[in-house]
Amino acid sequence: MHITIINGPNLNLLGNREPEIYGSQSFEAYFLQLQQRFPDVQLAYFQSNHEGALIDKLQSSDVLSDGIILNAAGYTHTSVALADTIRAIRTKVIEVHISNIHAREGFRQHSFTGAHAAGVITGLGLEGYALAVQWFQGQR
Amino acid sequence: MHITIINGPNLNLLGNREPEIYGSQSFEAYFLQLQQRFPDVQLAYFQSNHEGALIDKLQSSDVLSDGIILNAAGYTHTSVALADTIRAIRTKVIEVHISNIHAREGFRQHSFTGAHAAGVITGLGLEGYALAVQWFQGQR
Amino acid sequence: MHITIINGPNLNLLGNREPEIYGSQSFEAYFLQLQQRFPDVQLAYFQSNHEGALIDKLQSSDVLSDGIILNAAGYTHTSVALADTIRAIRTKVIEVHISNIHAREGFRQHSFTGAHAAGVITGLGLEGYALAVQWFQGQR
Amino acid sequence: MHITIINGPNLNLLGNREPEIYGSQSFEAYFLQLQQRFPDVQLAYFQSNHEGALIDKLQSSDVLSDGIILNAAGYTHTSVALADTIRAIRTKVIEVHISNIHAREGFRQHSFTGAHAAGVITGLGLEGYALAVQWFQGQR
Amino acid sequence: MHITIINGPNLNLLGNREPEIYGSQSFEAYFLQLQQRFPDVQLAYFQSNHEGALIDKLQSSDVLSDGIILNAAGYTHTSVALADTIRAIRTKVIEVHISNIHAREGFRQHSFTGAHAAGVITGLGLEGYALAVQWFQGQR
Amino acid sequence: MHITIINGPNLNLLGNREPEIYGSQSFEAYFLQLQQRFPDVQLAYFQSNHEGALIDKLQSSDVLSDGIILNAAGYTHTSVALADTIRAIRTKVIEVHISNIHAREGFRQHSFTGAHAAGVITGLGLEGYALAVQWFQGQR
Amino acid sequence: MHITIINGPNLNLLGNREPEIYGSQSFEAYFLQLQQRFPDVQLAYFQSNHEGALIDKLQSSDVLSDGIILNAAGYTHTSVALADTIRAIRTKVIEVHISNIHAREGFRQHSFTGAHAAGVITGLGLEGYALAVQWFQGQR
Amino acid sequence: MHITIINGPNLNLLGNREPEIYGSQSFEAYFLQLQQRFPDVQLAYFQSNHEGALIDKLQSSDVLSDGIILNAAGYTHTSVALADTIRAIRTKVIEVHISNIHAREGFRQHSFTGAHAAGVITGLGLEGYALAVQWFQGQR
Amino acid sequence: MHITIINGPNLNLLGNREPEIYGSQSFEAYFLQLQQRFPDVQLAYFQSNHEGALIDKLQSSDVLSDGIILNAAGYTHTSVALADTIRAIRTKVIEVHISNIHAREGFRQHSFTGAHAAGVITGLGLEGYALAVQWFQGQR
Amino acid sequence: MHITIINGPNLNLLGNREPEIYGSQSFEAYFLQLQQRFPDVQLAYFQSNHEGALIDKLQSSDVLSDGIILNAAGYTHTSVALADTIRAIRTKVIEVHISNIHAREGFRQHSFTGAHAAGVITGLGLEGYALAVQWFQGQR
Amino acid sequence: MHITIINGPNLNLLGNREPEIYGSQSFEAYFLQLQQRFPDVQLAYFQSNHEGALIDKLQSSDVLSDGIILNAAGYTHTSVALADTIRAIRTKVIEVHISNIHAREGFRQHSFTGAHAAGVITGLGLEGYALAVQWFQGQR
Amino acid sequence: MHITIINGPNLNLLGNREPEIYGSQSFEAYFLQLQQRFPDVQLAYFQSNHEGALIDKLQSSDVLSDGIILNAAGYTHTSVALADTIRAIRTKVIEVHISNIHAREGFRQHSFTGAHAAGVITGLGLEGYALAVQWFQGQR
Repeated sequence: MHITIINGPNLNLLGNREPEIYGSQSFEAYFLQLQQRFPDVQLAYFQSNHEGALIDKLQSSDVLSDGIILNAAGYTHTSVALADTIRAIRTKVIEVHISNIHAREGFRQHSFTGAHAAGVITGLGLEGYALAVQWFQGQR
Repeated sequence: MHITIINGPNLNLLGNREPEIYGSQSFEAYFLQLQQRFPDVQLAYFQSNHEGALIDKLQSSDVLSDGIILNAAGYTHTSVALADTIRAIRTKVIEVHISNIHAREGFRQHSFTGAHAAGVITGLGLEGYALAVQWFQGQR
Repeated sequence: MHITIINGPNLNLLGNREPEIYGSQSFEAYFLQLQQRFPDVQLAYFQSNHEGALIDKLQSSDVLSDGIILNAAGYTHTSVALADTIRAIRTKVIEVHISNIHAREGFRQHSFTGAHAAGVITGLGLEGYALAVQWFQGQR
Repeated sequence: MHITIINGPNLNLLGNREPEIYGSQSFEAYFLQLQQRFPDVQLAYFQSNHEGALIDKLQSSDVLSDGIILNAAGYTHTSVALADTIRAIRTKVIEVHISNIHAREGFRQHSFTGAHAAGVITGLGLEGYALAVQWFQGQR
Repeated sequence: MHITIINGPNLNLLGNREPEIYGSQSFEAYFLQLQQRFPDVQLAYFQSNHEGALIDKLQSSDVLSDGIILNAAGYTHTSVALADTIRAIRTKVIEVHISNIHAREGFRQHSFTGAHAAGVITGLGLEGYALAVQWFQGQR
Repeated sequence: MHITIINGPNLNLLGNREPEIYGSQSFEAYFLQLQQRFPDVQLAYFQSNHEGALIDKLQSSDVLSDGIILNAAGYTHTSVALADTIRAIRTKVIEVHISNIHAREGFRQHSFTGAHAAGVITGLGLEGYALAVQWFQGQR
Repeated sequence: MHITIINGPNLNLLGNREPEIYGSQSFEAYFLQLQQRFPDVQLAYFQSNHEGALIDKLQSSDVLSDGIILNAAGYTHTSVALADTIRAIRTKVIEVHISNIHAREGFRQHSFTGAHAAGVITGLGLEGYALAVQWFQGQR
Repeated sequence: MHITIINGPNLNLLGNREPEIYGSQSFEAYFLQLQQRFPDVQLAYFQSNHEGALIDKLQSSDVLSDGIILNAAGYTHTSVALADTIRAIRTKVIEVHISNIHAREGFRQHSFTGAHAAGVITGLGLEGYALAVQWFQGQR
Repeated sequence: MHITIINGPNLNLLGNREPEIYGSQSFEAYFLQLQQRFPDVQLAYFQSNHEGALIDKLQSSDVLSDGIILNAAGYTHTSVALADTIRAIRTKVIEVHISNIHAREGFRQHSFTGAHAAGVITGLGLEGYALAVQWFQGQR
Repeated sequence: MHITIINGPNLNLLGNREPEIYGSQSFEAYFLQLQQRFPDVQLAYFQSNHEGALIDKLQSSDVLSDGIILNAAGYTHTSVALADTIRAIRTKVIEVHISNIHAREGFRQHSFTGAHAAGVITGLGLEGYALAVQWFQGQR
Repeated sequence: MHITIINGPNLNLLGNREPEIYGSQSFEAYFLQLQQRFPDVQLAYFQSNHEGALIDKLQSSDVLSDGIILNAAGYTHTSVALADTIRAIRTKVIEVHISNIHAREGFRQHSFTGAHAAGVITGLGLEGYALAVQWFQGQR
Repeated sequence: MHITIINGPNLNLLGNREPEIYGSQSFEAYFLQLQQRFPDVQLAYFQSNHEGALIDKLQSSDVLSDGIILNAAGYTHTSVALADTIRAIRTKVIEVHISNIHAREGFRQHSFTGAHAAGVITGLGLEGYALAVQWFQGQR
């Protein structure tokens, strides 16, 4: 089983910035843990600050992945283009947010991308990615 | 570990109604499966169509549970009172929705209760409850 | 033919309060008249101030009634939960309001419950209940 | 007893268009049925696609009718002028809609004309006209 | 000097309806008084309940009038088409309302037509028409 | 003189929860103090998390009380039904909030119930109840 | 007959500023003309940039004037306090605006003060003041 | 092939008014050019300032035309009735606007009628009508 | 103990105007009663129609008062500047309104000043001032 | 004559995805047809999922093209930056949408980019591109 | 070169109140520093809590100043009258705010006055005034 | 001292386009002047039309710069992602706009990025960049 994790803008800063909020672990370190916890799953990881690059990756992953986990970060709330991509591709997408978007500013409570995802996991920290992997496993 | 699952209005109809959307499994049947999958977790289940009864149960579960999984259904979007309860109690609450609220009517995209929950899992079907249980296990 | 009439909050006060608006007849008295006017129809009547009790009654009436007449009063405009119940059950529901909700405060002009009812009769006084019964008769 | 039925724009197409929604019966055919069902009532029928013609008819019917049944169709939601006419005349007006406006687009859920009508019957099909006639009969 | 007065929907009812609000004088009677008070002005009067007829009249009066006084009544608040006509013609238009639109329902406080008129006189009763005539006289 | 105090959802938690905000005194303890401070007043106290139970109590207190003090908590901002009850009964109601609703989230600044109360006291802590009692005494 | 003209903020600049819009005539010069045109009317004139001074003047003019002409300029759209004064005093107030507020920015199209005035004359230039005086004369 | 062009309010003024915006060519002159450019197409032309007349014409053209080109002008943004007609008839309608509605006032950016048209061409001047004819030709 | 009462615009008219609403007692007369009822409290009273004067007085009272009672009247709903003053000074402020602002026009239901006051008493008539004094006494 | 066609996000998927909506033809195949139909026009084609790349291309095409046809897809509704580019360059831009944006979700009915385009063609399928080319030809 | 600094409500409290936010320096002390840093500039300083006094000062400074620096504080967001003054006078005005209005409450993010100022400097502390002086120097 | 200037979309066109608004000086030419005026400051300059490239540059400048001056142009009003970057990095950011955003379209008056900047300078032309440099110098 192949699962691609796609992270959006500023998630490359994880672990270095605002550790009191996001913890001191980088996503790369967490990704290694994920690979160890799910040895049967081929996990790929991609991060970009570019909206267009995220769209490109979603399109190119469509053929290769059995599931996509997307954290579009700031683009979640503004990108009609990303949302259109999710609708256009065949692979199911689970949207993950580390913090709880329902507990934040009003403009973060609307998700263009989430409307076309299979589901959304928000507020459960990095562990949200693991839950998404498990869900894809359970769907087989 | 004790986890209480609290389901809100109309979820008692699960399995009998609109099976093309919600499947033909009742929550009671699913709950039996959950108990088998998590033999180390003491799972309790409560359902009511009464907003006040859900508040009562959240309050009384606060002492007895290590985690609460709440699907407030239609009250999710309208109940300041339920949201106040979640904020007032000490036990962490995970909000679960079977269908993806981001893909539905506009009034379902705002969650009063989710703003005070630890996190929200939406759109992943009944499996969302299992993911919530796993998250509580991981927090230990 | 079985028809259940379900009245919501404060409709138990009918006849005793604000008679210049609502008349001096209690709903119980009107209900007796209805039974006499429609001897071929088995009419049942239920009133509660509790949103949850109205949901319970709608669910339990689903099996027993050929038609439900609902005046959810103040819950009409705020209850997603009640609206979900109407959508979930099989029996057709006609929403009745004694006064004309289109002529009242802005917040009374939106009806969550009416969106899932078969139809809505508003402003025609207690006689709206009789018209609803007649409509169910005509559907046979 | 004289009752005038006034139908607004596009209701002349009834029966010929979108029969899966509106049925295959023209309003003219239904009107004949109405006349047979209510032999004691002098029923008149007028249809126009012109907002001004509907206003003219409401004004001229004021002297001659004991009740007016108005389905202003698309003008319901936009015409302050028609609403002013209903308020200005003495004869009571019942607004009828064949489909349930509460279940349709947001802009159809506000009724300028309904705010000045005695009441509104919506969603009960062509039978809504018969119920309105019955209500006027009951008012005598 | 030629001045055309154009009255919109329901203003033909003036004097017959709601005399406690609008007085018991018909516009025709008032128009005779106006002609006597302004013997040097050629006054013409037109009333219609039809939005299109008001547009036609505004267009045809453009050549013949030195000033137009328009009370578009209910169309004031809804008619982009009428407003476009006022902008398109060369003759100046003064908008008059008998009652004070600023003191009425919110939807009456926006005037599409007034935005393209030279000015608006509202709330000063029938006398508003006389003031408008005087203004046109003063502009010579 | 009989005064009934009716407290809504989560106010049973007072003293046990968030003491830095609400103090460490339970309402029951405060109620005893109130009884001692106002020996001439027959004070009754009722609390429920159920919207319907609050409506029932308001209705049944109408006959027995000279004044009602209502803190509807979270239902304040969402309950048309409770507001309708206050309007329907004859006994005057004073709405009390312990914290200042004008200083909190936007959705707490609108009060459905307050619109039909005689007045509202907000932000003055538990002492707001005592002020309300004093006001009723002054009305005699 | 005594009429008081009260002008609000920046109207003291008339004639000196933006003459292409407002003309090159000061209000003082226009006021002299007004006095000559209406020799039978005792006209008084007051201008202030201070909202409170305008309120003071409205209150003190109430006893002395048979009519008040108010151009509250920028306060028109923001001052609940001025609007309350107009409602509180007995003398009728006509609101005048030199330019057409319906043709300007959205925030200028709502008038707090106009809602309590007898009427509003807008867009007819300085001549609007003369029309207001004539209206008061006609009311005698 | 038969194509009917239906123009709404004020388009009869084309060429005479605001030539700096709309050019100095009347629609009649342009229509002659169209007929010469498309000798294989039977072109018909209708203009009215009356909303109802436009509805009548759309209905009556339904049988006779292979395509309808509609410029509803000011009714575009306000007429639910016209939009309902477009939905009800079988002939495809292309909406044309001479100026670019996306570059104008906010209220012109919403099109009730365009939502039911096959497509919309806006801002390309009178040439938009020719493009619409070509599109219908290409559909054969 | 020193308490300063600051009244805003139009409250100097109390007793003379609209006595059916506000009673026939002037605030000065009521203030004398207050002084007699609270002999241990040094009460000062200030009224102005000027927003700036109210700000000046709040600032200068900060040093001299143990509590401030503010009825900003019409400025309550529009003055960011007054609200900033309340936040800036150290003395606690209680906002009082004679009528119930929750029962009035929508624009009166938002209070800029109340958001920074310790609390708000509204709808309890002049007696609201006495309750505020009592509250300050209880805080000692 | 040189015309550049610029397509935005997800339009590279045309023909492969959702063929029931968009047809089974890729844009590349359609582009070849366009070149054959317009042998006198030098047509260039560019597609990117990157907002910035679309801006770069618009800027660089400004010197080289006599006309630009832009389908910004999802960026149409969100990109102030793209709209600013269209305004800044000299070459006229026609906006094309394959589906009818007026018939889709509310957020698709506002076009930032269309406000600065010469015109917009929407809903006429791929043929909209050909119509745009023809329009540029007619402008020569 | 003459520059006038005009400060609005509550800025006289600077240094005495909320020093953790605004620092412990009074504006008077800072003004002395400014005079020393810009010996070639004639600096004048005016502060008032009165909206009208700020308008008066802006008008009277128009003749005497080469530049005006305005911090209207709370009036920034509510005063159409002040904004009109800035538009009416000839001297350029720079608006300065000590804290960053874009980072504060929603109602502080709209500036009536800033719309007519030459520019706005916000969030750069007292140093914003010095930057504004420098800008005026650079304009010579 | 190192300061990085980051310019967003279309600012590379400065000097070539719309010189009547933005002047005929390119930013590159202005940047040379800046370097000469501030010989003690190490100035770097970056421009991109790509939102992602601006985010990348902000992140990579965080280590190397003592201050960042950002003109995000069109992304200012739409980019949650850029705003998140400003919040995430440690270096202070000053937002600069050449024209006055408060004087432009409504959608330009909200700044996502400005909410996390230290401050914003708008409307003071290219000189705004120099003022920002000076402010950073003053902070040392």
